[in-house]
Amino acid sequence: MEKGRLEAFSDGVIAIIITIMVLEMKVPEGANIKSLLPLYPVFLSYILSFIYVGIYWNNHHHTFQAATSVNGAILWANMHLLFWMSLIPIVTGWMGENHFSQWPVLCYGIVLLMNSIAYALMIFALVRHHGKDSLLAKAIGKDQKGTISTILYAVAIALTFVNSYISLALYVLVACIWFIPDRRIESKIVGEEPPCEKSES
Amino acid sequence: MEKGRLEAFSDGVIAIIITIMVLEMKVPEGANIKSLLPLYPVFLSYILSFIYVGIYWNNHHHTFQAATSVNGAILWANMHLLFWMSLIPIVTGWMGENHFSQWPVLCYGIVLLMNSIAYALMIFALVRHHGKDSLLAKAIGKDQKGTISTILYAVAIALTFVNSYISLALYVLVACIWFIPDRRIESKIVGEEPPCEKSES
Amino acid sequence: MEKGRLEAFSDGVIAIIITIMVLEMKVPEGANIKSLLPLYPVFLSYILSFIYVGIYWNNHHHTFQAATSVNGAILWANMHLLFWMSLIPIVTGWMGENHFSQWPVLCYGIVLLMNSIAYALMIFALVRHHGKDSLLAKAIGKDQKGTISTILYAVAIALTFVNSYISLALYVLVACIWFIPDRRIESKIVGEEPPCEKSES
Amino acid sequence: MEKGRLEAFSDGVIAIIITIMVLEMKVPEGANIKSLLPLYPVFLSYILSFIYVGIYWNNHHHTFQAATSVNGAILWANMHLLFWMSLIPIVTGWMGENHFSQWPVLCYGIVLLMNSIAYALMIFALVRHHGKDSLLAKAIGKDQKGTISTILYAVAIALTFVNSYISLALYVLVACIWFIPDRRIESKIVGEEPPCEKSES
Repeated sequence: MEKGRLEAFSDGVIAIIITIMVLEMKVPEGANIKSLLPLYPVFLSYILSFIYVGIYWNNHHHTFQAATSVNGAILWANMHLLFWMSLIPIVTGWMGENHFSQWPVLCYGIVLLMNSIAYALMIFALVRHHGKDSLLAKAIGKDQKGTISTILYAVAIALTFVNSYISLALYVLVACIWFIPDRRIESKIVGEEPPCEKSES
Repeated sequence: MEKGRLEAFSDGVIAIIITIMVLEMKVPEGANIKSLLPLYPVFLSYILSFIYVGIYWNNHHHTFQAATSVNGAILWANMHLLFWMSLIPIVTGWMGENHFSQWPVLCYGIVLLMNSIAYALMIFALVRHHGKDSLLAKAIGKDQKGTISTILYAVAIALTFVNSYISLALYVLVACIWFIPDRRIESKIVGEEPPCEKSES
Repeated sequence: MEKGRLEAFSDGVIAIIITIMVLEMKVPEGANIKSLLPLYPVFLSYILSFIYVGIYWNNHHHTFQAATSVNGAILWANMHLLFWMSLIPIVTGWMGENHFSQWPVLCYGIVLLMNSIAYALMIFALVRHHGKDSLLAKAIGKDQKGTISTILYAVAIALTFVNSYISLALYVLVACIWFIPDRRIESKIVGEEPPCEKSES
Repeated sequence: MEKGRLEAFSDGVIAIIITIMVLEMKVPEGANIKSLLPLYPVFLSYILSFIYVGIYWNNHHHTFQAATSVNGAILWANMHLLFWMSLIPIVTGWMGENHFSQWPVLCYGIVLLMNSIAYALMIFALVRHHGKDSLLAKAIGKDQKGTISTILYAVAIALTFVNSYISLALYVLVACIWFIPDRRIESKIVGEEPPCEKSES
């Protein structure tokens, strides 16, 4: 089964998710500079979520570049990931509007945790479809970054009962870990592709 | 006529439909965990509709993979399907906000029924265009799943006058029937394509 | 300059326009069947606009299939068309909410008129770029349908001062004229392309 | 790394940005022609922003046509640009609703300034990736237009403390400078590509 339409559909959904988050920031009521002040926590949570969705898009892009085809299980694992991504705008808005208080920060963490689990499931389905000796399986390797983030999200969720700003700092930390796109796959592909293929892309 | 732009346009519309449904879930007003409680029926109906739209996208993907070209009738049959799909978010929100009471569940069923009829019409247009001996016609076969779902929707609509939760259970049942992507087409294509084509996709 | 990205961008914008119109239909407040009643004029105007946007997408699809490349003038003529199309959702909502009264029906007509003028300008830019002897120029011919619709829109706008339902009937009439996709281009392309190209699409 | 998905994703985000701006224009409350009057400043600011987003899309299209591949830095520079573009709808709505008063016009200018800086950073990442002797680097040259606009935005922001209409006039001026798509790249590509490639696009 072709991977093109799955990529196009995912691009569409992720593009909409990243853009509708901005709709949570309501146009300020007054014309004064002070009327912008209440927006700043929403703006900060928008920046964080924009980076997260950007990271997911980048990793999705890299992972599927190593894929050669897809099957039904991958289609649904991808749909499952998009479901949890689609919840990012609502928890982003809730967290920002409530100035990073406990429950919204906890729910934000749960949505991030479910996203990381959904991504791991998608990678599992991809590796099973391509085989353990495939380029994709080698490129992904042990996925240590994925495991570390999942653990950090779980820790962050627990820590909201202590201080929600510590949890927020952990979300920022995970974002920093992922900020650099997945060079593992990139380097493997470049290494194995013939040079004539590179100029074509 | 090329099928590429029809697929791209449908992908765009379906991606937007699946994502704007989340806009029906308003950001909770309080910062407390209790303020999430009123969201749960909206959340449940969002999950159901997300799966339904996912199923339609998967089947659309599979059906058009077997298509070689499109004509004016197929373009409009597809547009007709997208029209009924575009009504899913509004009935989803209405059903969730009213805790699955009779009329919203009935209207949800009507929209699902019209979607299944629109899909059947689109398949009819595709088969007429490709011919009865085409790969596509063979792959689709008698479309028993489609007929069964249409009947189940009609039964579910009638049963809202008895108990709307029975109707809801039937919608979930139909979703389960369709959850597995259309292997009929997948297997036929794989069977007839030369192996060198597979690695290309 | 490639036409691919222009088509993809236009597809994206048109897909969003056709889908956000449904957001103008607010989720009904009650759970009763009677709470759907106030929605019917909005629903009717949604159907009309959905068909119009569908027609524009179909014609856009057909016109650009005959195009071989684009230039800066075509890019901006296309952007100008998308601008007027983007106003369709707002006039649709206004017309529906006010039960097809004079001024909303008049504004709806102006937006349709500007769309038809913008489309004519885009075709003009395309023909000038491809040359008068090109396949595209021959396929479009005298564009009688476009001229007739522009005149009918102008008449409909004037008639809102008599009775807005006559204007509405004229909008429906123009939609019927355009409903069948532009066979002129389709037949010309099929006629001139070698048969081996057809199976590729 | 392929540039295709980056272009597709950017197209998606830009298409959504240009279309959701229209959602800031609320459906007028009355059915009278007078109820349209309060919309005119929002409409004017919508036109200006539509042209700006159109310019960015055109330039993005032209710049990436000269690119042969992308790397991680380009992906993030592009994401950074999309972030600042995503803020255009909110400042557009704020500026229009407050009749071009000082602070909204100033914020609109800051968003435009950040967009021009983000675009310059993206070009910098592209040139560094392709090399100073590449077609892309030659095509872009010294990017005088970019530098002039960045200076004009800064001047316009300062002038909001004198008169916000002067700033608005400067924004319109910059839009006029950019209105014509970047012919530098277009001409270079056409000049260096073999003629057989042109008919393919």
